[in-house]
Amino acid sequence: MKNTYFTPGPAQLYPSVARHVQTALDEQIGSLSHRSQGFRRIYQHTADQLREMLRIPDGSGIFFLGSATEVWERVLQNCVERESFHLVNGSFSGRFHAFARELGKHATQVEAPFGEGFNAGDAPVPETAELVCLTHNETSSGVSMPVAEMHALRSAHPGRLFVVDAVSSAPYPDLDLKLIDSVFFSVQKAFGLPAGLGVWIANERMLAKAEQLAAKGISIGTYHSLPSLFKNFRNYETPETPNVMNIYLLGKVAEEMNRQGIGAIRRETEAKAQRLYDFLDRSASFDVFVRNPAHRSQTVIVGSVAPRQSSQPKTATQVIEALKAAGIVVGGGYGSYRNQHIRIANFPATSTEEVERLVRELGKV
Amino acid sequence: MKNTYFTPGPAQLYPSVARHVQTALDEQIGSLSHRSQGFRRIYQHTADQLREMLRIPDGSGIFFLGSATEVWERVLQNCVERESFHLVNGSFSGRFHAFARELGKHATQVEAPFGEGFNAGDAPVPETAELVCLTHNETSSGVSMPVAEMHALRSAHPGRLFVVDAVSSAPYPDLDLKLIDSVFFSVQKAFGLPAGLGVWIANERMLAKAEQLAAKGISIGTYHSLPSLFKNFRNYETPETPNVMNIYLLGKVAEEMNRQGIGAIRRETEAKAQRLYDFLDRSASFDVFVRNPAHRSQTVIVGSVAPRQSSQPKTATQVIEALKAAGIVVGGGYGSYRNQHIRIANFPATSTEEVERLVRELGKV
Repeated sequence: MKNTYFTPGPAQLYPSVARHVQTALDEQIGSLSHRSQGFRRIYQHTADQLREMLRIPDGSGIFFLGSATEVWERVLQNCVERESFHLVNGSFSGRFHAFARELGKHATQVEAPFGEGFNAGDAPVPETAELVCLTHNETSSGVSMPVAEMHALRSAHPGRLFVVDAVSSAPYPDLDLKLIDSVFFSVQKAFGLPAGLGVWIANERMLAKAEQLAAKGISIGTYHSLPSLFKNFRNYETPETPNVMNIYLLGKVAEEMNRQGIGAIRRETEAKAQRLYDFLDRSASFDVFVRNPAHRSQTVIVGSVAPRQSSQPKTATQVIEALKAAGIVVGGGYGSYRNQHIRIANFPATSTEEVERLVRELGKV
Repeated sequence: MKNTYFTPGPAQLYPSVARHVQTALDEQIGSLSHRSQGFRRIYQHTADQLREMLRIPDGSGIFFLGSATEVWERVLQNCVERESFHLVNGSFSGRFHAFARELGKHATQVEAPFGEGFNAGDAPVPETAELVCLTHNETSSGVSMPVAEMHALRSAHPGRLFVVDAVSSAPYPDLDLKLIDSVFFSVQKAFGLPAGLGVWIANERMLAKAEQLAAKGISIGTYHSLPSLFKNFRNYETPETPNVMNIYLLGKVAEEMNRQGIGAIRRETEAKAQRLYDFLDRSASFDVFVRNPAHRSQTVIVGSVAPRQSSQPKTATQVIEALKAAGIVVGGGYGSYRNQHIRIANFPATSTEEVERLVRELGKV
């Protein structure tokens, strides 16, 4: 029997993925030249579907990289001469900030305690920061940043570039990409694909910044610099041989999501999240880890195990093992919280019925 | 009916790939955490198979990146403080050299005319070059560098680091990796996999150089720096969520290749190449593009179309179209040679029988 994966990435595959993989093999997509019309059609189809779903403005490029981790590096390399500013509310936003330092940038941050979020709208962006880095959804802690706050912060600082890490939430957040300059995500989270592809969306302001840096003799990398990516994108090509299979699969899944409607997917996501939070809240064995309801992620739900009121406290490992016996896989806590938290991905690939089954099994633990 | 791909990458998939993809889907490899024991077993299996096949010394790391194009950048970023030296015999070795300049390195080169190779053993390596970059097989021109010459050059310059681009030839060249410090390739060529994975093998001298650079405050990148890759590799992990599916498939295909024996695969490659070169040589419609037999690639065979002795000269496009009607796909010439050359990949995924069929169809053109 197959497991149902509620892990926060790699996660449950979108239900149609196996069928699309079969079609790709039948159509020999794996042998298709990345300089062929056939590949350009695939790239364009995937880009068109994402453009529709995420309301990506016409001038923005849609690029395929190796991972969202790579995008962290490329964003900083291409768009920061001296200083980036980061709102850090967990391990992944913290690593984004650390990357800036490793690249020799002056990287400043404001950090929230683990499990707490920001009222980002009034964050103290330094006058000197060129790029503001926000993480919509912290996969490590289950904290999310309200979209309206990100938009407010952006509007208060029109002279900077704003980039949003939506790795474990896209396409859930309804970002206004006329305001936000760049967003990125990886496909093994809410798009339900095998790992190995990061998607980077960036506008022409980002490109202009990269060109300014290059003109000053600052290294912005080689094949995955924004000028190189934009130049290739205009022809629906990539600078290197890319993960063609995943680009194809992403287009197919995005097409199905668009057919269902992104609004319907977002509402279903919220309903499933509500069900999980309600359960954790009422359960004697669990608590919701993120206390402030406004900062609770809709896509990565973190529960504390063995809260004080429980008479027979369990460890996260025991909970995970019990679920596994029922064919359900959830994630453990991140880092030092390994044995205190369970992390439950709430992505479109897992249905309302599967969430109900998870809740039932959690109730038995 | 399916086509047979003799394109020099992406290429024909290895015959068992579809079956392994099915197994991966059945076993839910696409949902497997990259921080799980299950993933570490996959990584170790693939690394072990490659170590056996390519006789990789114990201390060397085996890393998975997005593409071989990425490896170009990482090699230069991690192992060159000031100066790299390149033997350029085509478009890809030329691009490797261009990357060094884009990264602000002092990159010197010796360039051979397109279609000619090097007697690399006596190449004029500058005293000041820290890294020597050799391209075993030029996918653009069909020129190959004899392995013995690369070994001789390396032995003559013990103080430098030597890296070999074997993108479109590995596992064919029998490199001595006790002599050569680093080699890399991509999986959509001779390993017959879908694109989206570059494999980088590097020894501890390469790591030491990267650490020296970092200690001097020179940026060696972030997650894909050699210290980061080695640190993760020691635990059979990757710094980021990698292309798990392709790492799994590579291990399966490498295992089958080892079962057949790398010696047998190399002999079969040579026999098939001989068959193709003999045909091109004798044909009135084609010529072998690379004149010097010692520099002819065994894995990417380039034929000139419409040689002078032909009474009814054809363009490459006409040849390609005629083959396509017979379900055979070959590559066109690279860049400005588009309409003058055909490029025929001779990888393990295409059998002796398929090569015979290609020769028959070429004979009809």
